[in-house]
Amino acid sequence: MATKLRIIPLGGLGEIGKNMMLFEYGDNSLLLDAGLMFPENDMLGIDYIIPDFRYVVERKAMLRGIIITHGHEDHTGAIKHVMASLDAPVYATPLTRGLLEVKLRDARLLDRVQLHTINAGDTVDIGPFRTEFFHVCHSIPDGVGVGITTPAGLIVHSGDFKFDHTPVDGWPTDYAKLAEFSGRGVMALLSDSTNADKAGWTPSEAVIDPAFDDVFREAPGRILVATFASLISRIQQVLNAAYRHGRKMALVGTSMVENAKMAQKLGYLNVPDGMIVPIDEALRSTPSKVVIMTTGTQGEPSSILGRLSEARNRQFDLITNDTIVLSSHPIPGNEEMVHRTINRLLQRGARVIYDPIAPVHVSGHASVEEMKLLIHLVKPRNFIPVHGELRHLTQHAAIAREVGIPTENIVVVENGTVLEFEDGQMKVGERIPGGYVYVDGSGVGDIGPSVMREREALAEDGFVVVNLRVNKAGGLVGKPEIISRGFVFVRDADEMFTAAQAQIATAAARANTNGSAGSPQALRERVQQALSDFFYAELKRRPMVFALVNEV
Amino acid sequence: MATKLRIIPLGGLGEIGKNMMLFEYGDNSLLLDAGLMFPENDMLGIDYIIPDFRYVVERKAMLRGIIITHGHEDHTGAIKHVMASLDAPVYATPLTRGLLEVKLRDARLLDRVQLHTINAGDTVDIGPFRTEFFHVCHSIPDGVGVGITTPAGLIVHSGDFKFDHTPVDGWPTDYAKLAEFSGRGVMALLSDSTNADKAGWTPSEAVIDPAFDDVFREAPGRILVATFASLISRIQQVLNAAYRHGRKMALVGTSMVENAKMAQKLGYLNVPDGMIVPIDEALRSTPSKVVIMTTGTQGEPSSILGRLSEARNRQFDLITNDTIVLSSHPIPGNEEMVHRTINRLLQRGARVIYDPIAPVHVSGHASVEEMKLLIHLVKPRNFIPVHGELRHLTQHAAIAREVGIPTENIVVVENGTVLEFEDGQMKVGERIPGGYVYVDGSGVGDIGPSVMREREALAEDGFVVVNLRVNKAGGLVGKPEIISRGFVFVRDADEMFTAAQAQIATAAARANTNGSAGSPQALRERVQQALSDFFYAELKRRPMVFALVNEV
Repeated sequence: MATKLRIIPLGGLGEIGKNMMLFEYGDNSLLLDAGLMFPENDMLGIDYIIPDFRYVVERKAMLRGIIITHGHEDHTGAIKHVMASLDAPVYATPLTRGLLEVKLRDARLLDRVQLHTINAGDTVDIGPFRTEFFHVCHSIPDGVGVGITTPAGLIVHSGDFKFDHTPVDGWPTDYAKLAEFSGRGVMALLSDSTNADKAGWTPSEAVIDPAFDDVFREAPGRILVATFASLISRIQQVLNAAYRHGRKMALVGTSMVENAKMAQKLGYLNVPDGMIVPIDEALRSTPSKVVIMTTGTQGEPSSILGRLSEARNRQFDLITNDTIVLSSHPIPGNEEMVHRTINRLLQRGARVIYDPIAPVHVSGHASVEEMKLLIHLVKPRNFIPVHGELRHLTQHAAIAREVGIPTENIVVVENGTVLEFEDGQMKVGERIPGGYVYVDGSGVGDIGPSVMREREALAEDGFVVVNLRVNKAGGLVGKPEIISRGFVFVRDADEMFTAAQAQIATAAARANTNGSAGSPQALRERVQQALSDFFYAELKRRPMVFALVNEV
Repeated sequence: MATKLRIIPLGGLGEIGKNMMLFEYGDNSLLLDAGLMFPENDMLGIDYIIPDFRYVVERKAMLRGIIITHGHEDHTGAIKHVMASLDAPVYATPLTRGLLEVKLRDARLLDRVQLHTINAGDTVDIGPFRTEFFHVCHSIPDGVGVGITTPAGLIVHSGDFKFDHTPVDGWPTDYAKLAEFSGRGVMALLSDSTNADKAGWTPSEAVIDPAFDDVFREAPGRILVATFASLISRIQQVLNAAYRHGRKMALVGTSMVENAKMAQKLGYLNVPDGMIVPIDEALRSTPSKVVIMTTGTQGEPSSILGRLSEARNRQFDLITNDTIVLSSHPIPGNEEMVHRTINRLLQRGARVIYDPIAPVHVSGHASVEEMKLLIHLVKPRNFIPVHGELRHLTQHAAIAREVGIPTENIVVVENGTVLEFEDGQMKVGERIPGGYVYVDGSGVGDIGPSVMREREALAEDGFVVVNLRVNKAGGLVGKPEIISRGFVFVRDADEMFTAAQAQIATAAARANTNGSAGSPQALRERVQQALSDFFYAELKRRPMVFALVNEV
């Protein structure tokens, strides 16, 4: 019997196979990407989310290597967690490696991790997996997709990609390699579904240049451009525009400064001499002669843009005639915060330019026609949409049917579902246990549904604590202290709390049945119930109520 | 000196002039709309928000009337709060009046409110305000804009509008009246800015019909269409499609059923005999012969669609071959919840159709070219963009400049800013105090920034309460009880809480300086600080910590 190849996307509900994917062949495995997810709005207090990779840890002796396809957080952000539990060489292109090194150094793990530089075009044997890396355009340079050959067949994984004919770095996606794969016969294609509901063809990064030229021509004073810290090609584009229009550029924000340094050092950022100046110098210069690049495009209150929008930035503030460009799109779920930041910047008198007001940003992901082109280039026998929510995968599957992949050769699976390949046939296998893991502060995975429900309840109506002091006969001693937070504005609620004291007294008296003292437990429950009922009747709110009983 | 006309948009930051607008002339005032806002994602526990109209209440004797332009929640949803504090006749078209009656009856205010039916085309004198109502297309029938003439001049307010040449009810926006206004000379135009960042022309409601024909032709089983309860014209369109394709229709959900009944009674919904059947009958019928209309397009967990997505709906569940259509767009801020609901419905095996997968919804608001047309039709001297966030208003102002309104005759103002008109001149006046009012349960305006900050802190890291029992010498008696919620999963945190007890003991000992008992206040503060520091060191989390001191 031939050995099966198994592919398992890891993570919970959300984007499928985006952050981590496992390939298994016999006693060998290969991990693709180690990314994080940003919490949704109702995941209260959570900093970020990582895939649950216990399955890999339990089989750690099988792991032959870890491939990171590009340097974005949703593909690299879990690296410190992964490398703390797993031991295998990591393969990445120079820029991706550079960005990983920054993370691993921060986590004091750099010495322990074996990093291998690979380049697009390289073929590397990682255990029984012959991996062939090919260049893909994306919104960060040096991204790759990968062909993986085992005796079970050839799998092609697109990585995050688009087909940009005029990318900033002049390096288009490797059509020839994709065609070469198809000549050899591709058992399955795994392809990026992010934009499966966007018709047509994603515009080239080149469309941004004339939009920036307009901005630079019309801006009467300083220009501030906000984008993602890892969007190296956008930094290059702004740099080019600044050069054309006789402005110097300054970068602010640790992550952006560090990434730009790393990219410049590795040759991914082409900076004419003297074009980048320190922020202090930029702040002293004639406003019409500078552009400042920074982060904060997602409306994060702690970012420089967030602080500027509320006049809380220490190093510098907005001045008359500032033009602010948001060269980004809101990450789904951040729309409200981004729009609020834009409104506040306008309120403070800045000119604000963002897509759709002007085409100052384009997506880094393929749209529908590019997805079709990839399928036609690769000519896979089987098709598996990945990187997207279920609704994107479902739509990508429909696109694959449209271009001729037979329905029975397409599967839409969720994270944790095993795909098995044997004799060129694809089969959906079992579901492995697991999901995602909340990271909150330094706690990894200690917060689950029950704590989350408590936070929801507290966020909704707050809490009330009552300190009951009772004598041996069960009688209340004095007026119980009441503490509340997040429930009512205490200073305006005197009357209600006075009435609450009466409710407590009545409930306490009832807890003492037949004139003898009831149990502390009975007293506690009586008072809690009475107060819950009372607050609901008064305000239609249900704070968490706790009564403490102290015999004094 | 001529009497000034003053216009004041009311409400806080958010959509400007959308929910309520005040017109003052001498000792007379006129209120336009009484709507609510939906809370943003970080307004924890808030049910909805209403404009702060204290300014109107303080001058209630001036109020001559209240005009409601159409029946959507953001224009009607605060009516019970307004009518509880103000006393003036309410003017509305028949359908809008019908929907207001439902609300006022619920609030037991119907007997106290004087309602006047007006129709598009009517001229009504409300105090010194000569009001002329004109029909506008929107996503609900019977919407109006209004011309308001005082000796100070003629103001035209667009209401929520689009220029639909083929609306469902066959009643286009009243171009002739708009042109007639321009002939008389319009001092100022107030115009809907909602879609100021949408290029072109909003598609007609008619484009939905072929999209629904496709859905009805291809659906193998039942069809469930979700939309807003007040989208009467969409109910009509689905009814028409059902009729063409030989299906009966059932409605579920109290608000949708009530609105449809009211619309049918008033002649705004045209129902062929026997086309609407009770839900029980629909559930017993052949699946391919029915369509069910319901609410829940915003991903609300308590809606029927939300419950179906999680298999929690009591009356009926999804069955094989169900097709679900979301005939709606997410309200900004709801994107995540809507997408989650779609993913869950797909996960449960339903076919799900939504825009942009198919054009099953169009906006009810004008896009850029329609905005330009309105300006050209009305030819106003002054222009004030309203109904939108600051970013929309700013963009609408740019559009007005583009079509020839002089920059000095355009103002972008925020809620609370007074606009004064005298001798045809527009001036920006003072800012009146006020903002918006949170409604939480039955509490109106009792929740402010401080309670909101508490809820944020609780949502972020929860809380911990410690019950300290001390003897007269200030020594701890027994091990203090520790209660926490939303902080850690208590069952897995034994070790940390054991260590916390040691921290408490140390802190308590230190509170007793020189061997004598410290004050309860000092003890409390010492323990709170020690625990805060300890929890942060352990977990990088900052729960609210409360220590209670009980001498026993």
